[in-house]
Amino acid sequence: MFFPAELIKRKRSGLEHTREEIQFLVDGFVSGTLPEYQMSAWLMAVFFKGMTAKETATLTGVMLHSGRVLDFSGARSRAVDKHSTGGVGDKTSMILAPIAAAAGVTVPMIAGRGLGHTGGTLDKLESIPGFSVSLSLDQFVEQVSTLGVSIIGQTAEICPADKKIYALRDVTATVESLPLICASIMSKKIAEGIGALVLDVKFGSGAFMKTLDEAELLATKLMEIGTAHGKKVASLLTNMEQPLGRFIGNSLEIGECVAILKGEEFMGRRDFDDCRGLSLELAGHMIWLGGLAKDACEGYDKALKTLEDGSAFAMFEKICRAQGGSLEKLPLPSAKYDVLSTRDGFVSAINTEQVGYAALALGAGRLKSSDELDLTCGIEIHRKLGDEVRKGEKLYSLYVRDQSLANKFADAENRLLSATTISLQKPQVAALIAKTKIN
Amino acid sequence: MFFPAELIKRKRSGLEHTREEIQFLVDGFVSGTLPEYQMSAWLMAVFFKGMTAKETATLTGVMLHSGRVLDFSGARSRAVDKHSTGGVGDKTSMILAPIAAAAGVTVPMIAGRGLGHTGGTLDKLESIPGFSVSLSLDQFVEQVSTLGVSIIGQTAEICPADKKIYALRDVTATVESLPLICASIMSKKIAEGIGALVLDVKFGSGAFMKTLDEAELLATKLMEIGTAHGKKVASLLTNMEQPLGRFIGNSLEIGECVAILKGEEFMGRRDFDDCRGLSLELAGHMIWLGGLAKDACEGYDKALKTLEDGSAFAMFEKICRAQGGSLEKLPLPSAKYDVLSTRDGFVSAINTEQVGYAALALGAGRLKSSDELDLTCGIEIHRKLGDEVRKGEKLYSLYVRDQSLANKFADAENRLLSATTISLQKPQVAALIAKTKIN
Repeated sequence: MFFPAELIKRKRSGLEHTREEIQFLVDGFVSGTLPEYQMSAWLMAVFFKGMTAKETATLTGVMLHSGRVLDFSGARSRAVDKHSTGGVGDKTSMILAPIAAAAGVTVPMIAGRGLGHTGGTLDKLESIPGFSVSLSLDQFVEQVSTLGVSIIGQTAEICPADKKIYALRDVTATVESLPLICASIMSKKIAEGIGALVLDVKFGSGAFMKTLDEAELLATKLMEIGTAHGKKVASLLTNMEQPLGRFIGNSLEIGECVAILKGEEFMGRRDFDDCRGLSLELAGHMIWLGGLAKDACEGYDKALKTLEDGSAFAMFEKICRAQGGSLEKLPLPSAKYDVLSTRDGFVSAINTEQVGYAALALGAGRLKSSDELDLTCGIEIHRKLGDEVRKGEKLYSLYVRDQSLANKFADAENRLLSATTISLQKPQVAALIAKTKIN
Repeated sequence: MFFPAELIKRKRSGLEHTREEIQFLVDGFVSGTLPEYQMSAWLMAVFFKGMTAKETATLTGVMLHSGRVLDFSGARSRAVDKHSTGGVGDKTSMILAPIAAAAGVTVPMIAGRGLGHTGGTLDKLESIPGFSVSLSLDQFVEQVSTLGVSIIGQTAEICPADKKIYALRDVTATVESLPLICASIMSKKIAEGIGALVLDVKFGSGAFMKTLDEAELLATKLMEIGTAHGKKVASLLTNMEQPLGRFIGNSLEIGECVAILKGEEFMGRRDFDDCRGLSLELAGHMIWLGGLAKDACEGYDKALKTLEDGSAFAMFEKICRAQGGSLEKLPLPSAKYDVLSTRDGFVSAINTEQVGYAALALGAGRLKSSDELDLTCGIEIHRKLGDEVRKGEKLYSLYVRDQSLANKFADAENRLLSATTISLQKPQVAALIAKTKIN
């Protein structure tokens, strides 16, 4: 038995908590014996004083065991999931999950909704008519066991402590704390029953971490937790200075994924190299960590093979069928508006967060949780970083469901034009994958 | 209308709040529209980021106006109170209030209970049989208007915001924040309707502030708030490296006060120079700030005169009578135990906080709020700093109500012996009043 105010004072003074102290705080908060006002004061003290690697791993473990912890240790391969820290046009989950599963990896994927200016895997999947991301955890386990893969949303049985703590953080300005962010991410991933994890840690104008250094620190902290819990973790630090791929928006991104999986065109284009390449790299790491390749290179080759022999797309169709979705009926937008360049030059910088907000303004995401989405709307990117453009040529195309929503174009156009820098000199374009790390 | 989480984030980032923002937070918390968990997160952010002088003055004003604010502007003199930051054997209120009132000053005094190792004016006054510190605010105003002075406890009508915020701070480890401490003290004092305030800011082993520098910082912050609210404030920075006077304990301290006021002896002694001198200094400043002397020196002389002509003691009797107390029936202890020196030498250091805890151990104060006090028990100090003592001579005498409580002596004796350093060399003894400041 501890005195909560004493524990808050310990953290406030920068002292390290014991396992018993963290257990007391989290269990008490979940059961309701520790009041919210003490938890929020403690969270703010954590914001200022941080947590040691040991404390963060302990917090992760305590949150993890607040709910059901899945176990795929008897599955056909080591279970592996991928987690992205979030970006704009980031649709790799729908590509790499079927690739890795087609290559034999067990992929239990519990995904999220859009947050801030970023899109969410669940919203994208729900643009496929009939697709259900609300399977029960038992149905999820069943599908992972038979098909090798399932993609669902967070359920109440996984990490209830994280859910309750996150809700409190959201209203007490304690979201932006590295140890709390890391414990939240890792507790949910480890609860999925994974043996290994591939992290896509993004940095740049479209990411939550604006610099490579910040992203690397986050990756290090996440990997430390993985190590403490006996999980292999590979981190790819990837550039989010521009949107990934050619489309932003829910059904538009599904269309792009299908084109990449089938090797076909979508909306008249097939230039999806960046998105396809990153998906293959991430899937290659999953295949390696799943124990089905001797290294990430061999994993990449195996991933590529599933694209070329059609098995990855077949797997995506199976996922859709298993979860009730009809890919043939994918809804697409019917109203379009082109955003033209106002000058000659090269695209030298894109404020990608603002591009994300432009997509939100069209209806692709929620500004508040009650907002209804236009699952078809979005943005097509004609010019990427380093591309030349002439005055009057297309930079972007904007889409909405139908002409009745055309009033949304003006705001999005303004945002996009002010987010896009055109300069006379051709800029250097950084590599998409800046660094790879492994614990 | 503000978003509470945004305001917490502003403070978390070290930005300065506007008056409207502070008003929104405090009023919302008092009315219940701002939940406790947001207030506690904000308080912890204040703990780490502090508040500017302007913010602290604004917080004071908002808390002040959350309840009733008295007004003695039409009284016979400017209303003046004294506030002490708390010490051991600190009984000056019972001496200076009648002195200042006898000299013509209006003294509306709302006092406190013991806190931690320190005693409280209310507990001391309640050792006088029948003395009521629970007058209504209207009765208080009436007595101050007719008699010129009244001493009561905190009422629900004065600064309800402070009461509610303090209760939350107590359980969220946010008590030790200088701006919050200052706003709490000053809002309650200003609500009494004072025009000026004399502060006794203590430092040393028996005070909450251990060094003169800390005490001076606290005094400066308190005086800044006074300035912002148009109140003249004088601060005396006084040494609490040893108990003040000769007695610690509720009725014993009243006995010492009466002896000082009457110029008579109590328990066979009349060597109360330090306590008498400090009370006269503080009262002299009150008389000066009350507008009844041209400076603190003349105030001191007027204060002294009220002791010598008996008017101060007569005023104390009137206060007791007005508030129902019978000074003649003051209960005194019947069981005594002497603590003897174990060696020859000079008293060179006293851990005064531990002396306070020794008095608590005898029953003079509360370790938890439900503890019942022995209002007669306490400690007599035979040797003060710099005094010579021989092995086997008395350092302290311990008192309890009757022999049935004699089991309490052992713990107190141990504490006192380990709190008292006897050395071979005669130590330098610092002045009781280290510094005087005025805004």
